[in-house]
Amino acid sequence: MNVFIVHAHPEPKSFNTALRDLSVNVLEKEGHSVTLSDLYAMNFNPVAGPDDFRDRADPDYLVYALEQRHGWETKTLAPDILAETGKLLWCDLLILHFPLYWFSVPAIMKGWIDRVLVSGLTYGGRRFYDRGGLKGKRAMVTCTLGGREHMLDRDEAIHGRLTDMLKPLLQGTLAYTGMTVLPPFAAWHVPYVDDTTRAGYLETYADRLAKLDSLSPVAYPSLDDFDDKMTPR
Amino acid sequence: MNVFIVHAHPEPKSFNTALRDLSVNVLEKEGHSVTLSDLYAMNFNPVAGPDDFRDRADPDYLVYALEQRHGWETKTLAPDILAETGKLLWCDLLILHFPLYWFSVPAIMKGWIDRVLVSGLTYGGRRFYDRGGLKGKRAMVTCTLGGREHMLDRDEAIHGRLTDMLKPLLQGTLAYTGMTVLPPFAAWHVPYVDDTTRAGYLETYADRLAKLDSLSPVAYPSLDDFDDKMTPR
Repeated sequence: MNVFIVHAHPEPKSFNTALRDLSVNVLEKEGHSVTLSDLYAMNFNPVAGPDDFRDRADPDYLVYALEQRHGWETKTLAPDILAETGKLLWCDLLILHFPLYWFSVPAIMKGWIDRVLVSGLTYGGRRFYDRGGLKGKRAMVTCTLGGREHMLDRDEAIHGRLTDMLKPLLQGTLAYTGMTVLPPFAAWHVPYVDDTTRAGYLETYADRLAKLDSLSPVAYPSLDDFDDKMTPR
Repeated sequence: MNVFIVHAHPEPKSFNTALRDLSVNVLEKEGHSVTLSDLYAMNFNPVAGPDDFRDRADPDYLVYALEQRHGWETKTLAPDILAETGKLLWCDLLILHFPLYWFSVPAIMKGWIDRVLVSGLTYGGRRFYDRGGLKGKRAMVTCTLGGREHMLDRDEAIHGRLTDMLKPLLQGTLAYTGMTVLPPFAAWHVPYVDDTTRAGYLETYADRLAKLDSLSPVAYPSLDDFDDKMTPR
């Protein structure tokens, strides 16, 4: 299996980085090939803009998704984008490693999503959800949080469920592009817990990495249940 | 009323920018003071990192939120952050203007959220939701979308409800900091609609701006309903 890890954390010594290193080590030991994009180390540019296109369908008026489509067809996207789309196409499993900032990914990773999940490649027209361009690949989110588990483990929890907070990422992004979404892995209350608790998180995570195939994916919409206008049948 | 508009769109001639200009014009005409941060025009840095702090509580290990708290207390945050927190404290109403990218804000705006909604100022400890640091202010999201309204207008819609997709922003960010969240304004299917439809959106939006006080806020959690450990009472 080819595994593409995208990682975003401003502290190279962070516990989040330890989880990422665990991903690399466990998966390589099992014989998988692993490629890593460490967005902070790469100084990745997260800002979607006109410089992302070496040739424009409309030089006078930028509709970002439409230029992505043109740039993908004509292979004129910026080189840093094409480097990432290459890794994405290569992989069977994508793992996003990040600390939860405002119940979402840090901006540098949002920019990776905005710029790399190119229209025309990952979706377009009626190609999304189970007809998305990345169908056949799996995706998993591995995040660290300041909050405690009971604040995000049920509808009545103060923030509701973590999977609902992550809906734009899990459903609106990963499932939208056709990927099969594995349940997210969360390490809770990380800046405040002791070393024993952190060691426990590492153990639980190593265990999960060893049995990815036994995880039930999160269920997301199928276009079979909607008509051509995307109205429920 | 003091109104702070934060805007992010890579195309200065976009319809999204027309909505932003309408906000400025209508609100100024009504006698309000308006301040605008046009993040693309400002070349705003969205990447949270060690350079955001001119003095560190822990120079060897970066926990971003903890350094924000220290930086806010000691007034040693980077000048571009302090310029934005100044506008935030000044305002009574915050309006975020953006095109929906992956059911969320563009990365440049996510970075504004990551870096400017500083821990210690906007939240901290048990100061969040209706005890958040920005209590008393209102916030509104104004976004443009490629999708059509029937794809996001009910639980059974293909993407579910827009307010659910926006939950990490509306609840997890704006309400979390204590702000009263007005219903989001969405202009649908923007790259594909005709001029008459766009003119209709502008008219509807002008109408909404004229009666902000009559809008019912979206309901979010109150800490009164949770105990000291944030478990539901």
